[in-house]
Amino acid sequence: MKPYVLGIDIGGTNTVFGIVDARGNVIASSSIKTQRHADFYQYLDELHAEATKLIEANDATDKIQGIGIGAPNANYYTGRIENAVNLPWPSINLAELVSEKFGIPVAITNDANAAALGEMTYGAARGMKDFIMITLGTGVGSGIVINGQMVYGANGFAGELGHVIVKRNNGRLCGCGRTGCLETYCSATGVARTAREFLEARNEPSLLRNLDINAITSKDVYDAAIQGDKLAKDIFEYTGTILGEAMADMVSFSAPEAFILFGGLSKSGDLLLKPVCAALERNLLPCFKGLGKVILSELKEADAAVLGASALGWEAKRVSETN
Amino acid sequence: MKPYVLGIDIGGTNTVFGIVDARGNVIASSSIKTQRHADFYQYLDELHAEATKLIEANDATDKIQGIGIGAPNANYYTGRIENAVNLPWPSINLAELVSEKFGIPVAITNDANAAALGEMTYGAARGMKDFIMITLGTGVGSGIVINGQMVYGANGFAGELGHVIVKRNNGRLCGCGRTGCLETYCSATGVARTAREFLEARNEPSLLRNLDINAITSKDVYDAAIQGDKLAKDIFEYTGTILGEAMADMVSFSAPEAFILFGGLSKSGDLLLKPVCAALERNLLPCFKGLGKVILSELKEADAAVLGASALGWEAKRVSETN
Repeated sequence: MKPYVLGIDIGGTNTVFGIVDARGNVIASSSIKTQRHADFYQYLDELHAEATKLIEANDATDKIQGIGIGAPNANYYTGRIENAVNLPWPSINLAELVSEKFGIPVAITNDANAAALGEMTYGAARGMKDFIMITLGTGVGSGIVINGQMVYGANGFAGELGHVIVKRNNGRLCGCGRTGCLETYCSATGVARTAREFLEARNEPSLLRNLDINAITSKDVYDAAIQGDKLAKDIFEYTGTILGEAMADMVSFSAPEAFILFGGLSKSGDLLLKPVCAALERNLLPCFKGLGKVILSELKEADAAVLGASALGWEAKRVSETN
Repeated sequence: MKPYVLGIDIGGTNTVFGIVDARGNVIASSSIKTQRHADFYQYLDELHAEATKLIEANDATDKIQGIGIGAPNANYYTGRIENAVNLPWPSINLAELVSEKFGIPVAITNDANAAALGEMTYGAARGMKDFIMITLGTGVGSGIVINGQMVYGANGFAGELGHVIVKRNNGRLCGCGRTGCLETYCSATGVARTAREFLEARNEPSLLRNLDINAITSKDVYDAAIQGDKLAKDIFEYTGTILGEAMADMVSFSAPEAFILFGGLSKSGDLLLKPVCAALERNLLPCFKGLGKVILSELKEADAAVLGASALGWEAKRVSETN
């Protein structure tokens, strides 16, 4: 009997779930709308019904060893989601309720940690004991692995590298209430903010001036940059330099073998990677030369969230066996 | 038979060593001059002779379970010292040579990591699984513990938090060749540099103006501050604020339960601690509120280096048993 795990990625819009084997093949996957039910128990009923359908259709009944869930603000230690503002039920004892419903051990963590686990179990970080996953999406998330273990810290929320301060004075206002956080510069929205700043502060012509300045996205900046637009290329140079400088400080902390980049912005190719690597190299303490290789995620984007969550499913099983 | 370990702290001037029991009592200690022999083997002969004398005088022959050594640039993984500029033999396979000479398992690490191990084994961090030790001396050193384990990173040199960049532009030149490192501001020498800067940039009277500006030490600044000197108190405010801000970023990384401060500057009391705690509190991400308590080391300064090194001696024994 082949063992499987169920990976569940709870996002603000969709909840995607899939059956995954030990090699990281997504056997089958499906999804439901996260927001359909304001009541968590109705949501759980639907999730259970749909997942059971998927499991039965794939002849996987009684083969699911564990369930791993990636969700915003999910805490590995407590099994709870806390203050997840974009979910209908911002605080809930998720792991316990899902485990009771399915009769299967459940472990949960936040999306970025799940991505790091996925990369370590099935992707670019296989065999690595010390690496840092950085997700460059709407925000900047991170998952830190040290000595082959996920870093959860004293309260389960460690690894908020999107919120290290990169500009101590006059930094941009962040959603967290502070100013100057890395994610206000190096996320997709950060790139759009930089575009608006550069367009207002500079006079040179740019393809971006043809667009509504308030609606510019990081994709617009990318499209302009690959057409050779100087201002757009400068935006990537600026973004990558800030990220590379911040990464050099992360190396001074945990001396990771590599950084794995994931998320929309990481697909900007050399436009982003060149300044990232240059700034990282320039700012590394001499004793760390050669560390912190910059690597792109190896997981297919469509599967990555479910794969990451599923990696935690194997762990849920191990933990439940030792209890 | 009571088991003991031998702790050896190799400093630029003195090599201090002591016999330590499982409760962290230093049974006896002694020292030799680190610089007396340009040749490492002659140094090792003297160290072995003097340590053996101490061991025999304390009836500890055959009771030493392991030897732990703290030394600048010592690498736990390789057992080597690398490029330690203030030692007569900057690069040497220390662990192997000492182990052969004594016939006892040896483990080594750098001074700040040894201090963290000492604090975890015998001091203020007993029972903590996630904390960061910060040593505020001539420089700023750090030892990071996560999941109850020392963080060595991919190459054994992790935990160089004295070299995170706190001023990205126009920062002070650091001994590492870069600019703006934490230790150029928050070490004893950093405080002296701040004193010189403040005295030149400001016109107000200060007790510090009675001193030779080029010879001012952090102790002079402390003495002036406790006499109520405004400029001297401002120097501590400035230093503590930078340190607290940097510590808030460290919390975003590993969510430590506490920071343990050690070293000369940490004895400045509230002059330093108040601005540190205020800046840390002000800059903490909301999900980390209550973490990163600031605690002073509980180890007696005279014993701390030897105790820290000795803590690694127990580990050397365990590692040698599993090999």
